[in-house]
Amino acid sequence: MISKLIDKITEKNAPVVVGLDPNLKFVPGHLIRKATEEKGDTLEAAADAIFEFNKAIVDATYDLIPAVKPQIAMYEQFGIPGLIAYKNTVDYCHSKGLIVIGDVKRGDIGSTSESYAIAHLGEIKVGNTSHRPFDEDMATVNPYLGTDGVKPFTDICNRYDKGIFVLVKTSNPSSGEFQDRAVSGGEGDPSGTSRPLFEVVADKVREWGEASMDGAYSNVGAVVGATYPEQGEAARRLMPHTYILVPGYGAQGGKAEDLKAFFNKDGLGAIVNSSRGIIAAYTKAPYSDRFDEMHFADASREAVKDMIKDIRSVL
Amino acid sequence: MISKLIDKITEKNAPVVVGLDPNLKFVPGHLIRKATEEKGDTLEAAADAIFEFNKAIVDATYDLIPAVKPQIAMYEQFGIPGLIAYKNTVDYCHSKGLIVIGDVKRGDIGSTSESYAIAHLGEIKVGNTSHRPFDEDMATVNPYLGTDGVKPFTDICNRYDKGIFVLVKTSNPSSGEFQDRAVSGGEGDPSGTSRPLFEVVADKVREWGEASMDGAYSNVGAVVGATYPEQGEAARRLMPHTYILVPGYGAQGGKAEDLKAFFNKDGLGAIVNSSRGIIAAYTKAPYSDRFDEMHFADASREAVKDMIKDIRSVL
Repeated sequence: MISKLIDKITEKNAPVVVGLDPNLKFVPGHLIRKATEEKGDTLEAAADAIFEFNKAIVDATYDLIPAVKPQIAMYEQFGIPGLIAYKNTVDYCHSKGLIVIGDVKRGDIGSTSESYAIAHLGEIKVGNTSHRPFDEDMATVNPYLGTDGVKPFTDICNRYDKGIFVLVKTSNPSSGEFQDRAVSGGEGDPSGTSRPLFEVVADKVREWGEASMDGAYSNVGAVVGATYPEQGEAARRLMPHTYILVPGYGAQGGKAEDLKAFFNKDGLGAIVNSSRGIIAAYTKAPYSDRFDEMHFADASREAVKDMIKDIRSVL
Repeated sequence: MISKLIDKITEKNAPVVVGLDPNLKFVPGHLIRKATEEKGDTLEAAADAIFEFNKAIVDATYDLIPAVKPQIAMYEQFGIPGLIAYKNTVDYCHSKGLIVIGDVKRGDIGSTSESYAIAHLGEIKVGNTSHRPFDEDMATVNPYLGTDGVKPFTDICNRYDKGIFVLVKTSNPSSGEFQDRAVSGGEGDPSGTSRPLFEVVADKVREWGEASMDGAYSNVGAVVGATYPEQGEAARRLMPHTYILVPGYGAQGGKAEDLKAFFNKDGLGAIVNSSRGIIAAYTKAPYSDRFDEMHFADASREAVKDMIKDIRSVL
């Protein structure tokens, strides 16, 4: 799967992913009104509005980008109707040739992680028929439970040619609380010097990925926030064959100059996500001067173009 | 919420929770056949079968137990129909007076964690109408992202009288890979001695819970696996006012004598989960000798009684 993603990144010359995180406050009023007039003030109406919002943004940007990353929490908050909108979004993005990274951050003990892996990347059999429940191409995974929480995902990746991105150093302000804690090196580090926990996780991600190579990179990737370029440099060094999914660019404060550290010298190795910066572009300068809420998708297209230009400038 | 849980535990004299994790391989053939005859080899049929399975087990055990813990991964693996069965299970358990702990292990950056908290414990407004999407009473939360990934959950707990259990030391074999790593004490520990990461997380759980007290205990609980009684003792000491949800009893290998460490001297402070040991009791000795698959729910009732007796014996 990672080789497919790299092909698309290269074809579009755009190491970017658009985060489809449709908080209702970003969805233009006319879409919400249309849905609630039809279905009342229901979760179904909210789900219809966010799906129409996504569709318009995808239609306006799919030719520029290799991939999208819907954040499932934004759909789960609308219950079952929201999750139907999530699944419809995954399918719609596939119909437009996009790679879909399900930002689900799942992770549990082994047998349970296997069920999550089946849900998002695998197949399940009922009687004699196999089903692919959500069928994203890649998913994000939480490493706190260790190898046996992650291995079911890598097994499914190997079986169905899918990929994962494991949280290593997240973009949020308090990510350092545990992730930056100095830990003793353990078996892997005979020098006994201590290093931040995220580096120990990065070592494991590299190790987990070794049996999932797909060309020059592994189907087991990592998440490292744009907001922490120093840690990005360390992560890049520790995981040379690991693709890094980089959230935190734009609205969260990550800048293009900070992104260089996340890429390899081949110009590959990282894909940068922007969510609010793209999907809510019409609400913010400079786009709000040129686009009203009826033209929110055109604003998103401009924001994608600007983001791609910004990132190309540092590579 | 924790005071409601404690009232029910005391009323039933049973610090136990039944894990409703209906893997299709535990569901008796006659339930699967009935569903697939009606709906074909579809995800809908699988979802119907697991819901009927849950209902029978709940009907057979609800008078003995204070709470259930459905593991959402087991439903998510059947896609949207599976998640509908999850929601129906939550509602059915509520109709039987049970407290529902959603084992969802969610956790993300702040704004996203807020959406997860809304989905499972809170409310969302569409137009002028408020909806409670999944509406469990409590949920499990992953701490890897630090305070700003957990605070949205505690805020929602305070607002709607709900509770969470934060993963501290999980029951799986590789949980020590990161959770047992020796970390330097940091600001909270001027002595500078190192301790396992899960103890640092335990300190944070205690701190997060201070603003969510509900009687003698906090609405912010912790997860510590029965398979690690030594760590359970440390967790108990570090978090005196924290309720501990203890998975890993039974099928995963945790024994009653190991559980004593998780309880306070008041006989409270912990609630022990068993999933497979209860719901799949009819497949295993000693129950398989006395109950065939038509009487799976009766076997579950016997297994619950035995579990309660076993745990009472060490308190």
